[in-house]
Amino acid sequence: MQNIVERLLSGDRRALARMVTLIESEAPPSRRYLAELHQHAGNAHIVGVTGAPGAGKSTLVTRMVREMRKKDARVGVVAIDPSSPFSGGAILGDRIRMMELAGDPNVFIRSMASRGSLGGLASSTRDVVRAMDAAGYDPIIIETVGTGQAEVEVMRTAQTVLVVVAPGMGDDIQAIKAGILEIADIFVVSKADKPSADQTVAELAMLLSLASNRREAAWRIPIVKTSSFKDQGIEQLINAIRQHRNHLHESNTFADRAQRQVRSELQALILHAVEDSLDAAVSEEEWKTLIDAINERKRDPYTVASELQARIGLKK
Amino acid sequence: MQNIVERLLSGDRRALARMVTLIESEAPPSRRYLAELHQHAGNAHIVGVTGAPGAGKSTLVTRMVREMRKKDARVGVVAIDPSSPFSGGAILGDRIRMMELAGDPNVFIRSMASRGSLGGLASSTRDVVRAMDAAGYDPIIIETVGTGQAEVEVMRTAQTVLVVVAPGMGDDIQAIKAGILEIADIFVVSKADKPSADQTVAELAMLLSLASNRREAAWRIPIVKTSSFKDQGIEQLINAIRQHRNHLHESNTFADRAQRQVRSELQALILHAVEDSLDAAVSEEEWKTLIDAINERKRDPYTVASELQARIGLKK
Repeated sequence: MQNIVERLLSGDRRALARMVTLIESEAPPSRRYLAELHQHAGNAHIVGVTGAPGAGKSTLVTRMVREMRKKDARVGVVAIDPSSPFSGGAILGDRIRMMELAGDPNVFIRSMASRGSLGGLASSTRDVVRAMDAAGYDPIIIETVGTGQAEVEVMRTAQTVLVVVAPGMGDDIQAIKAGILEIADIFVVSKADKPSADQTVAELAMLLSLASNRREAAWRIPIVKTSSFKDQGIEQLINAIRQHRNHLHESNTFADRAQRQVRSELQALILHAVEDSLDAAVSEEEWKTLIDAINERKRDPYTVASELQARIGLKK
Repeated sequence: MQNIVERLLSGDRRALARMVTLIESEAPPSRRYLAELHQHAGNAHIVGVTGAPGAGKSTLVTRMVREMRKKDARVGVVAIDPSSPFSGGAILGDRIRMMELAGDPNVFIRSMASRGSLGGLASSTRDVVRAMDAAGYDPIIIETVGTGQAEVEVMRTAQTVLVVVAPGMGDDIQAIKAGILEIADIFVVSKADKPSADQTVAELAMLLSLASNRREAAWRIPIVKTSSFKDQGIEQLINAIRQHRNHLHESNTFADRAQRQVRSELQALILHAVEDSLDAAVSEEEWKTLIDAINERKRDPYTVASELQARIGLKK
């Protein structure tokens, strides 16, 4: 009997599904498996798809996968479900549309709830992508809902980031200004059959012409119009993704991004270990006693933090 | 000659201004000063004001401060400037409107750039609020732009959170669904002179009636309409804030929130210390060598992270 890593590498979907479950549940052996899988990953092109709720991302991803399948690509999809940082509840919503792809043995789709910490989501997304990559899926699409900090973190895993904007969503363009612009590699104006689509394209073009402080200036961000209703624009979009992939490799951008990504992964892994050490070193009762003392002004948070650091072994 | 802490506690504005600068620049002595200041803080009511760009937050805060001054309160304001996680650039924008308050010796306003890490912003905001609190300012208003994860983090410092929505901002209500709802204590519909204001109130009321999974169910979130143009609603808003403050103290909510806040502050302080240890232990050159080995698949990130943990002393 082969182990789960060998089975995954040989293309066994059930082994991959089980690995993803191990990653999501943070089961102890997953770390060891992932260390092995890392040797076999690094081949897939990772495409991020983000945008506000209702922008039409799930439909777009479904069409993209279908188009990629025409060229016989084995496609992986990681769909991050929206959830609040407090309730932890996930709304599954229009993921159902993606179900039409579920019967295809060369498409692997996994939904992940975005409960837990911000860093936790980014790191488990990275690990799931690593497992799919080692299993031979290429490209891998990561879809997130919303354009907040959590999405920006997740999108750092991707090599090509698509920001999807639906016509007439008003405040969307405002939201883009706030930070998404700098992670976008391609803009997609969805629902291009709507009469206001051209205005949205014009607004985005204006926005791009104003954004002069972008680091990787050599890439000119394209704006691609797509219509799922009229089945338009998907081929152009896939071409734009390929062009961006080529650009990454021809320029030094690919290496630069890979450097940044690995560094942030190392930091995240270490911070996670610190959280685990704290959990092990400080009981719930002691937390309560310490916190009460701070709230009653008998102690201060800075001194207590120093003491806890010493307890988990951290050098000064 | 008195030291900076004594001068700050005796009400010296220049000492407070200097302390805030020390906090922002993460100057080493600030930690020691803050430990002292903590003993004298804990009296101020902390009011968070958040909402999408263009919702009219700065104007609202200006009116709120003026109304609070009528009752002779000494008011502190911390305004967080928007900036991208990448460029670090800050847009100062309509902060200028707040300038009319700048001449009042009983109002202390400080703008902070939101460059740096998410956690960094939340912790320096908390420290600046602590300094203002110890200096006798009460209430203290924290204003943030946007409704993303960074704002949610910052808003955890506040005891009463106002979410400002302008009429006809369309996608705003969508964004609120995504997470802000659960941190809101009071909704403010600004620009209430606009004809579509009542529709926005109705949409928010609908949203609130649907949100059944809110933890602190005893507080019924009010929706307050304000108009800076017609100078309406500010008194009602200040009353609503006072009612919420009373509610926090009468229920157990105040103690519960204080517990959570101190815990998250302790964790943030410890994680920050870990980042400092890593910076001291690993040179830029070594980072590059390690990262290259990982990208070339000679090493894996999990093993490298374990080694670095051991290096900074972290126990298994």
